Amino acid sequence: MGKVPIGTNTTICPMPVTLIGSVVKGRPNFMTVAFISRVCLDPPLVSVGINKRSATREAVLRNQAFSVNFPSVAMMKEADYCGMVSGNNTDKSMLFEVFYGKRPDAPMIQRCPLCIECTVVETHDFRSHTCFIGEITAAHIDESCLAGGRPDPKKINPLLLTMPDNRYWALGENVGSAWSAGKELLKGK
Amino acid sequence: MGKVPIGTNTTICPMPVTLIGSVVKGRPNFMTVAFISRVCLDPPLVSVGINKRSATREAVLRNQAFSVNFPSVAMMKEADYCGMVSGNNTDKSMLFEVFYGKRPDAPMIQRCPLCIECTVVETHDFRSHTCFIGEITAAHIDESCLAGGRPDPKKINPLLLTMPDNRYWALGENVGSAWSAGKELLKGK
Repeated sequence: MGKVPIGTNTTICPMPVTLIGSVVKGRPNFMTVAFISRVCLDPPLVSVGINKRSATREAVLRNQAFSVNFPSVAMMKEADYCGMVSGNNTDKSMLFEVFYGKRPDAPMIQRCPLCIECTVVETHDFRSHTCFIGEITAAHIDESCLAGGRPDPKKINPLLLTMPDNRYWALGENVGSAWSAGKELLKGK
Repeated sequence: MGKVPIGTNTTICPMPVTLIGSVVKGRPNFMTVAFISRVCLDPPLVSVGINKRSATREAVLRNQAFSVNFPSVAMMKEADYCGMVSGNNTDKSMLFEVFYGKRPDAPMIQRCPLCIECTVVETHDFRSHTCFIGEITAAHIDESCLAGGRPDPKKINPLLLTMPDNRYWALGENVGSAWSAGKELLKGK
């Protein structure tokens, strides 16, 4: 298959859409972020890339805590809105009913099926974004999104994003099992 | 909706499956990695969490370069296999036809629809994983996966992973547009 170059600003395909919770001007604030992943299994660390001009960056720097909330596809409108307006000049505290875990500075969204609470352990500044490494201190899921005691991705129904086409997607069909699908090749060795 | 705690080892839902390319013992090697995201827009930075016992970590430390290859759903078997065996004791160089961009130490997979080449700019060690921050130096896509000059996610057909259910997923349907779906809420302000 013929390959063509597409420049250096390529994004991960696809990216999970999350709402990063913090406390801005004394109120819960949520910013849409797709630059996020786990970076370490033990301890359980999350990396999140936050625009340096955002109210969220200032709040996370100050409080050393944040939450990661996974909006479902049904919350696309609200999730998109939280990426269009800044907590610097817009109060987003009335958008969602919030709850708190161990920290008073990491508000979580009741309506999001999966919510994670993090304490900052490292901060790395780059030109346009700050990378916060957070340790997961707690996670909460809607009881209705469990199957056999485990999170069921189809019930969570997470929202995904691709760029630069700027489209939102749902999770598709289950196509196989990990640490299993490749066993056939293992036997060939 | 009632929330229940699910411990601290919660993963991002879902995670993109990638094959990290490096040169191990003089040969192309590929490791399956789902702890990956962009962390900065400018410069274009990628963070990747790599198990410290892997051959890939040693190779990336030594060469300060790696590639990120996105396997399609059709490559599930090979992608899963690359996560089950280590380059420390298995030669994975014959699995894929490779090509090179600017660097001789970041082999890319011809069969993967989307391939990114990175140079390491920062390295952060944690207990079980090392977080490499790489700057994208080039990206290559199958010409057949472009639509209107842009990567078409449905044509790329990326492989996704969820844990701890350890299931692979395809990308689902397009449900809306970013920087657009939330405009309705914007008008209400």
